[in-house]
Amino acid sequence: MEINGESPPQRWRFEGNERLTQAGAVTVRGVLNMVMQNLDENDSRPVIPLGHGDPSAFPSFRTTHFAEDAVCAAVRSANFNGYSSTVAIAEHLSKELPNKLSADDVFLTIGCTQALEAIVTVLARPGANILLPRPGFPYYEARAGFSGLEVRHFDLIPERDWEVDLDSVDALADENTAAMVIINPGNPCGNVFKYQHLKKVAETAKKLGMLVIADEVYGGLTFGNNPFVPMGVFASIAPIITLGSISKRWIVPGWRLGWLVTNDPNGILTQQGIVDSIKGFLNISSDPATFMQGAVGEILENTPSDFFEKIVSTLRECADICYEGSKDIPCITCPTKPQGSMFAMVGFSVGLKNWLRVTFAIEPSSLDDAFRRIKAFYQRHAKKQ
Amino acid sequence: MEINGESPPQRWRFEGNERLTQAGAVTVRGVLNMVMQNLDENDSRPVIPLGHGDPSAFPSFRTTHFAEDAVCAAVRSANFNGYSSTVAIAEHLSKELPNKLSADDVFLTIGCTQALEAIVTVLARPGANILLPRPGFPYYEARAGFSGLEVRHFDLIPERDWEVDLDSVDALADENTAAMVIINPGNPCGNVFKYQHLKKVAETAKKLGMLVIADEVYGGLTFGNNPFVPMGVFASIAPIITLGSISKRWIVPGWRLGWLVTNDPNGILTQQGIVDSIKGFLNISSDPATFMQGAVGEILENTPSDFFEKIVSTLRECADICYEGSKDIPCITCPTKPQGSMFAMVGFSVGLKNWLRVTFAIEPSSLDDAFRRIKAFYQRHAKKQ
Repeated sequence: MEINGESPPQRWRFEGNERLTQAGAVTVRGVLNMVMQNLDENDSRPVIPLGHGDPSAFPSFRTTHFAEDAVCAAVRSANFNGYSSTVAIAEHLSKELPNKLSADDVFLTIGCTQALEAIVTVLARPGANILLPRPGFPYYEARAGFSGLEVRHFDLIPERDWEVDLDSVDALADENTAAMVIINPGNPCGNVFKYQHLKKVAETAKKLGMLVIADEVYGGLTFGNNPFVPMGVFASIAPIITLGSISKRWIVPGWRLGWLVTNDPNGILTQQGIVDSIKGFLNISSDPATFMQGAVGEILENTPSDFFEKIVSTLRECADICYEGSKDIPCITCPTKPQGSMFAMVGFSVGLKNWLRVTFAIEPSSLDDAFRRIKAFYQRHAKKQ
Repeated sequence: MEINGESPPQRWRFEGNERLTQAGAVTVRGVLNMVMQNLDENDSRPVIPLGHGDPSAFPSFRTTHFAEDAVCAAVRSANFNGYSSTVAIAEHLSKELPNKLSADDVFLTIGCTQALEAIVTVLARPGANILLPRPGFPYYEARAGFSGLEVRHFDLIPERDWEVDLDSVDALADENTAAMVIINPGNPCGNVFKYQHLKKVAETAKKLGMLVIADEVYGGLTFGNNPFVPMGVFASIAPIITLGSISKRWIVPGWRLGWLVTNDPNGILTQQGIVDSIKGFLNISSDPATFMQGAVGEILENTPSDFFEKIVSTLRECADICYEGSKDIPCITCPTKPQGSMFAMVGFSVGLKNWLRVTFAIEPSSLDDAFRRIKAFYQRHAKKQ
């Protein structure tokens, strides 16, 4: 290779990192980017996004102006204080917990994404493994793959409202199993775990010596029979690390304010060095924007309840459209009506048996249109019986 | 260990990551946290912070309302578009470059911190090493240590305006040397590299087959004889990765919007897989807040020049106070007056010979007070000759 037209051939002594390239390709973002790049540009029909997880672009899912006001006030105040935000998050989450959290239990992160990155990075050591749900959220696999943390999958059972197959957890775990992840309300299944099931999860974790990572980023977004029970309720049984953010409940995924919370009344996470490692990780990482730290207390405390009622009501309507729409299309099955989050898992019977995550958190009229188009596609292409 | 008063002793199968804990302790943030925790609470005198790198709390360093307006407008628009921001950054930086940048050369990051994390993570592979300046910015050492990238230090020479000791670069590099880092304007030295010196850096990098990582987070903040020359000017000699952000020039370190830019007219970074790895890294990492992405174009394009003039003028005043104040205290030496950034390196002669980074970017009246107090301390404690 010649450079500048005058130099001798040269070997550059740096090269990319294949593990990063691969990890980036298995995320939802990586796959969606690939799909979007391969759309037919000459097709004038609007693309209806059922694959992503960000409803913020749709009018029905516009966030509350109380949240916008809080951010703008923090930006203009030029007066940022990171401490009060951890107090506010501790108080907000403690409302539903028997063991009250303190500000020291709360670590601010850049959305739930960084919270997840933090705990996966902390747990990654040679030989260790982590138990992840199948179906799950592929970012866990991507991060674990990059960090060299071995992944083992346990199943969620569609016939049992997507409950964890605890027998398979038992069979998968060994002395190198550091943690198991549950996502509740469920992504991608739209399920909400019952109190008794979560208690069994905690007891299983205790028996196996694992911690439970409870991804509750969709916490509070429930609209079926099962109420949302935070996993921290069972922290006296086994140590729980809860991941969350304002992204979903306030429909502001781009605002990048999340948290990692240690529910650890018995001090096990401190004793095992997990807390020090989390602090170390955050010391060498970026912070959320300071004005978001400044605004989050106001956002958590002062958002009127009618905002949440409206969002939950819209999600219920969308879940109905999705469930009823699936029933109306013979090649698609949705085993249970979603009770929470923004997703349903639908099965396909098109020769191959497969499953797909459908985001129903889009404008209800667009969602109607999407199912009409899928049904028409089915009718055009279905083999005559 | 007994849990719940009823269980048999149990071994928990997870543990912290010592490498994270150690990495977190060597950052400026980690050390400052330790210092602040050990202050005498009964001492009523105000603490004047000369150790940190964030002047935003001081009235003289308040950011422009144009920037605040841009963020609030983006928050309230509920209309975010990540693409235009990379166009804006490419145009902004290209003004001073012979090889114009395109939006594809620009990667948005969560402040300069994440840009630095990205490139260090990309370059870390078994056996590889990176050349870092001494004195430098300890976050590089922390990130490299965590990623398992070997660090070798070259010297900056105080008697030559803190120029790079290129002979020591030559001696340190081997076939596993992936990159060298330069920080210009200098942190912690407050120096600004001359055009001819930067050209020699590029030629050295080419000869040794390395890329140059140009940390220009203080770009544009110069107030001495040497103008700021972006390293990208020499991209046709060797590939350059420029790191930057709005943090310093707009005095908004907490807004967390930075960039990693590839200056690579010969396509070497693409060919060596670096660009794909950067994309992979960012795919598995958090983004900057979307409204910051939405606001940055407006901030770069529409900030009136008198804001920069005022900030640079205040920094010049502070640099003078720091330089003259040091001359007035016999045990402190500041070899050259700072020409850029927000820092000066001052040497101590107090039995042991040592150096310290002094942040002069604080309210000028407080800075005056700080040097008065240091001088009084010296006079009280100096040994009688």
